[in-house]
Amino acid sequence: MAGVQDNQLAIAVSNAGGLGSLPCAMLAPDTLRSELTTLQASTAKPYNVNFFAHTPPVPDPERERVWRASLARYYREFAIDPDNIASGLSRQPFDKTSAEILDHFKPPIVSFHFGLPSRDMLAHVRSWGAKILSSATTVQEARWLEARGADLIIAQGLEAGGHRGMFLTEDLTSQLGTLALVPQIVRAVRLPVIAAGGIADAQGVAAVMRLGAVGAQVGTAYLLCPEATTGPVHRAALKSATANHTALTNLFSGRPARGIVNRFMRERGPLSDQAPAFPLATAAVAPLRAKAEALGASDFSPLWAGQNVSGCKEIPAAELTRELARGSV
Amino acid sequence: MAGVQDNQLAIAVSNAGGLGSLPCAMLAPDTLRSELTTLQASTAKPYNVNFFAHTPPVPDPERERVWRASLARYYREFAIDPDNIASGLSRQPFDKTSAEILDHFKPPIVSFHFGLPSRDMLAHVRSWGAKILSSATTVQEARWLEARGADLIIAQGLEAGGHRGMFLTEDLTSQLGTLALVPQIVRAVRLPVIAAGGIADAQGVAAVMRLGAVGAQVGTAYLLCPEATTGPVHRAALKSATANHTALTNLFSGRPARGIVNRFMRERGPLSDQAPAFPLATAAVAPLRAKAEALGASDFSPLWAGQNVSGCKEIPAAELTRELARGSV
Repeated sequence: MAGVQDNQLAIAVSNAGGLGSLPCAMLAPDTLRSELTTLQASTAKPYNVNFFAHTPPVPDPERERVWRASLARYYREFAIDPDNIASGLSRQPFDKTSAEILDHFKPPIVSFHFGLPSRDMLAHVRSWGAKILSSATTVQEARWLEARGADLIIAQGLEAGGHRGMFLTEDLTSQLGTLALVPQIVRAVRLPVIAAGGIADAQGVAAVMRLGAVGAQVGTAYLLCPEATTGPVHRAALKSATANHTALTNLFSGRPARGIVNRFMRERGPLSDQAPAFPLATAAVAPLRAKAEALGASDFSPLWAGQNVSGCKEIPAAELTRELARGSV
Repeated sequence: MAGVQDNQLAIAVSNAGGLGSLPCAMLAPDTLRSELTTLQASTAKPYNVNFFAHTPPVPDPERERVWRASLARYYREFAIDPDNIASGLSRQPFDKTSAEILDHFKPPIVSFHFGLPSRDMLAHVRSWGAKILSSATTVQEARWLEARGADLIIAQGLEAGGHRGMFLTEDLTSQLGTLALVPQIVRAVRLPVIAAGGIADAQGVAAVMRLGAVGAQVGTAYLLCPEATTGPVHRAALKSATANHTALTNLFSGRPARGIVNRFMRERGPLSDQAPAFPLATAAVAPLRAKAEALGASDFSPLWAGQNVSGCKEIPAAELTRELARGSV
């Protein structure tokens, strides 16, 4: 879960018998190296590293100008000079630099979001024996991943928090609830399937295993664990009644992602045609988020969460992992 | 399932040990009486009768005019005279007339969609000992139904085919996937909960029971049964690959309902601000549907279906019911 955790959560989960995951898409090379060094020194159990596999967009200055102009009232409100906002990609797809760093650590499992990197890059990852995972949000994406050589498929239902992994379509009506998606993917591919989306507790894990999944991917439930780096406004939102209303929004990054509805999403509508392509939309909102968060407000923060926050507990991740695992037996 | 079944499907399901349901919202008083007469003569098992509980809209001639004007190109295509299209409500909420007919039959279970009728009407239904069910699409709606005296709650997840039962909100972002909705409603109310949405087979039934549901409501899977009155273009669509792409649309009735994406939904976008209030939108589309269906085309038909048509089988409803029931043990 990029932005809300580092190796500490991954270590705790892996040591408790789950498969801890390190989100790498927002890490600079030096940080990636140091995170992996700590991770490997702290667990002898399997762990996963997660990268994005999107195609970087071609910047579109006119679209960026229109997007920033539409935010003018917010810049005025927070006394932000719109001419002094940094551009720049906040999230990079998996690349040669990352692959060469991974060579030193040989992580046993590598997962991707938004498809898969090139065949050459996949061969590189496979060279040290890593298993490759990626998310499918439709049956068609699952078949595509199987044909491209994924080893396991994460069936990401519509309930899931954070970015939709969708990569063969931009049509949100194609996105299925977990209960509908998992059995259809299980039937469509020969690969093992991990279910994601709306799984908050052991009962949820048990339910998806009845649908044919071999495991469950749980994110939201870990957001209040002490090992997560979830920020104060995000934690406060998760603990409030507002957490029961999430929506898919592209305002924070340019791609649809599920988060708790806040002021920015309410006022703009959660989905905007004006938002620049992923991940370019992030830059213009970043200073608003920083100013609002400094005032203790979550109005401009991406409050990623799935449709079931009932499993969020302020307990050590190891304890939560053991609770969830009771659903898998 | 109003429009695609009569008492034959209900009888087959009840006699096989399920709870067969008769959709009554589109039945004139005489038909309601004759359907119930046949139903009661054909099964000694419990059965359910389903009614709508919406507030009838105030007709808005200007909105109707704009809506019909927006359909002009289609009227021309099918040589339909737009001045000769009947208005009129195609679906009536539960009323005194219906209640008095039910008095003679005393159905053991009465379910409502879109909330509940007035307290007086509920007292009337309860007078012969009927249990009252209604659909909740959010935790808030489940609590409302419990407070108003429902006996069981149907948790209708976003995957479900046909009309969303939502009645306290019109905001589609409030709608949850079944896997997220069921456990949250189970926890929020003391009433027993029946899960609906995306349940296509015994595995699906087993999964929702692991989430705490006491039963499963299955609709889509029955649409190809010989006892269903599903029309030819609807059956053809369900058997084709297009059935894998559904969307919520208000074009056919004025309220969001899930159906297979067809030409009308694609060309207009599935959700339109112009569609008259439920159920008034139906009238203007009805002649287009009739003309297209006469040509064997499903382009203007509401092709209600949930997000998992994998359970649709051309087998007797009794057999399907017994297959599904294997998931409940």
